[in-house]
Amino acid sequence: MQFELTDELLAQVEGLVEEQDDKALQKLLKEFHYADIAEILDELNLEQAVYVIKLLDSKTTSDILIELDEDNREKVLKNLTAQEIAEEVEELDTDDAADIIAELPEERQTAVIAKIEDEEHKEEIKELLAYDENTAGSLMAKELVKVYETWTVAGCMRRIRGQAKEVTRVHSIYVVNKEEKLIGRLSLKDLIVAKSEQKISELVKVNVDFVNVNERVEEVARLMAKYDLEAIPVIESDDNKVLLGRITIDDIVDVMKEEAERDYQMAAGITGDVDSDDSILQLTRARLPWLFLGLIGGIGAFVIMEGFQESFNKYAVLFFFTPLIAAMAGNVGVQSSAIIVQGLANDDVKGSVNDRLIKEMLLAALNGIILAIVLFLFVWATKGELNTALAVSASLVAVIIVAGLIGTFVPLFLDKRGIDPAIATGPFITTSNDIFGILIYFWIAKMILGI
Amino acid sequence: MQFELTDELLAQVEGLVEEQDDKALQKLLKEFHYADIAEILDELNLEQAVYVIKLLDSKTTSDILIELDEDNREKVLKNLTAQEIAEEVEELDTDDAADIIAELPEERQTAVIAKIEDEEHKEEIKELLAYDENTAGSLMAKELVKVYETWTVAGCMRRIRGQAKEVTRVHSIYVVNKEEKLIGRLSLKDLIVAKSEQKISELVKVNVDFVNVNERVEEVARLMAKYDLEAIPVIESDDNKVLLGRITIDDIVDVMKEEAERDYQMAAGITGDVDSDDSILQLTRARLPWLFLGLIGGIGAFVIMEGFQESFNKYAVLFFFTPLIAAMAGNVGVQSSAIIVQGLANDDVKGSVNDRLIKEMLLAALNGIILAIVLFLFVWATKGELNTALAVSASLVAVIIVAGLIGTFVPLFLDKRGIDPAIATGPFITTSNDIFGILIYFWIAKMILGI
Repeated sequence: MQFELTDELLAQVEGLVEEQDDKALQKLLKEFHYADIAEILDELNLEQAVYVIKLLDSKTTSDILIELDEDNREKVLKNLTAQEIAEEVEELDTDDAADIIAELPEERQTAVIAKIEDEEHKEEIKELLAYDENTAGSLMAKELVKVYETWTVAGCMRRIRGQAKEVTRVHSIYVVNKEEKLIGRLSLKDLIVAKSEQKISELVKVNVDFVNVNERVEEVARLMAKYDLEAIPVIESDDNKVLLGRITIDDIVDVMKEEAERDYQMAAGITGDVDSDDSILQLTRARLPWLFLGLIGGIGAFVIMEGFQESFNKYAVLFFFTPLIAAMAGNVGVQSSAIIVQGLANDDVKGSVNDRLIKEMLLAALNGIILAIVLFLFVWATKGELNTALAVSASLVAVIIVAGLIGTFVPLFLDKRGIDPAIATGPFITTSNDIFGILIYFWIAKMILGI
Repeated sequence: MQFELTDELLAQVEGLVEEQDDKALQKLLKEFHYADIAEILDELNLEQAVYVIKLLDSKTTSDILIELDEDNREKVLKNLTAQEIAEEVEELDTDDAADIIAELPEERQTAVIAKIEDEEHKEEIKELLAYDENTAGSLMAKELVKVYETWTVAGCMRRIRGQAKEVTRVHSIYVVNKEEKLIGRLSLKDLIVAKSEQKISELVKVNVDFVNVNERVEEVARLMAKYDLEAIPVIESDDNKVLLGRITIDDIVDVMKEEAERDYQMAAGITGDVDSDDSILQLTRARLPWLFLGLIGGIGAFVIMEGFQESFNKYAVLFFFTPLIAAMAGNVGVQSSAIIVQGLANDDVKGSVNDRLIKEMLLAALNGIILAIVLFLFVWATKGELNTALAVSASLVAVIIVAGLIGTFVPLFLDKRGIDPAIATGPFITTSNDIFGILIYFWIAKMILGI
């Protein structure tokens, strides 16, 4: 069943679109999962993609839209009328529906919402649109299966048959009291293995996990991963546990992927979620700022070295080690910041900041000394100048220790300030460490060589 | 319900362990989810942790063991007898049981397996242990709910009541024919909304996703994320679809987390999965090799610069720009490699390698020219030497282009060779780019200044 997007398949689809052979096209695409069709459409040009979307029934296309690349989806939606978008939205669960609408420009949003016929669906979408991005509310769906504690298993089953039709996947059945407040959960399994005359209140599992509607998405992801949850109910607030919706693991999986990619890119000096197929301009916008930072750092290093020029006319050789010093400072800084950033993300950075810094200092010292010995032997062997060798290797140790401390401290500091520490790994740390490194290097070398 | 591991709580647990107040300890811990208890044990010292493990019933402790940090679990297991471990294993699903046993030293493995009483459980665990790491087989559980196409809904429900008891979570019900071959799936929901006299063969969804038992774990994760699956059945082979087990999304979530962390660390020049709480020696082992690479690169740069020394006695200023050149080469290289590595991971790197390289060249040229202009103006303004300014900025452009090409080509090359391209980002690229960058820089500068 493994789907693979071959050039043949792509050519075939493009061909059928050109010939406008709708019958054959529908027949061909009916074979594929909507996620696969989305993969195909992502490779077609806009006109072709729109043609296919307009051809297929909105039951399928609504799912396809969700799976499209964001940029492509935006373009496709531009080519659909408010009426057409509304029809797609009618088919979607409230969470996906709200996501689609949220991507539209303000005025279109109202136009589309106005065209939604199902009043309940419309109200629920409006509610979801009101929650801030990156909160549980922005991720949850209104669709869920809910029963009252007073019901019997048999009654439950009857009611569930009704509710379940609108719910794509029944994970848990949420049990509420007459004020609609969450009091526990049930699995379908529990219902099936139970006797039909039993009361729900006898079966309900009361210690159910839940999140507050304003909880941060990252925290929701952490909880669901930690407790191996497939769905988590969302409540209004800790003191008013009215059940508002539920978040399913598939949405969390997407969140985790995006998060991981963002951090990875940020560590590499790329801002904004770009991928290798984006335009050169998009990629430049994402990469140039960090390169500028590097340029400024380099100019800083230049100024420092110029400042030491006089003292070193007799030790020109020292200048040849500056790339080495800068590189080591950068690498060590990135290493220690990466460890801290990750520790913070998994919130297993326990203990005091001082302990961290002391540990990192020892670690850096250990690495530094080992590396310094190698460097010392190299310089001594090749140059035969004991002093130079000593100066270079001694300052390397100092540089590495400082680099480690900066790499540890900066992310901790940013985190305390409520700034995403991930920006600290990569160019930010490298650049600052280049400058500090070179400064410390020349300064110590100057002392040792006594000039 | 938010659990938070406070120092007070930790102190309380430690206190009760010291006083050996088992009653109070059991009462206290009964309140917590096993994942939370694991979090507590991770903070206790070994004796304390083992004490708690031996105190609680194996129903709970088996789940706790799974959630412990790998290093801590290893230590704890060392302190349990084969008999005790076997008792834990009896309580676990086959996949977790196999994971625990796989972590034991060879001879203990056989000892523990011998002590497992439930014969079926034992055989299933042995089967799972036989599959290679990083294959679907190593991740799947034998527990699943299976029905035959010939059954009726009513019959099904009866049988499921039996099977479901052993299955932690019923996601899908897998439908097999009399040769035990997978022919489709059903959701509990489908069963509940169906009429009790209906035949399964009428309800079964035949286009079910499945994976081959030898499929790579990364591929399984990609599929489950793409198709929003909560569980996927595992079959023996594409031509012999005998149903062997199923993989659930919670295991995939863990896999995705580990993958993301590994790539992130690799990009930062850290090998082996270490975290901020590991010992200084573990951290050194993970970090030092990459620093050595950096050292060698630096020494390479040194040799190059020394080679150009003669020609530049009148242009000492050029040496002051080497950290800048090296930094830019490094940053650009990391940026382009990160984009490619991520593209390869999401396998959306389509089109030919040449197109990639051309695109990256244009991108780098664009960035390079913008940065070069800034640098040119700076040098010209401060030094007033038009030639130097020209030489420095012209070579910066060249360096950036080459760095971009290396950063793009290396991961693509490694990937073709079947090597994880993730090692290409970080120190590996930075170091090689430092050397190439400085070489190109001096070489071009020399041409332009005509020396």
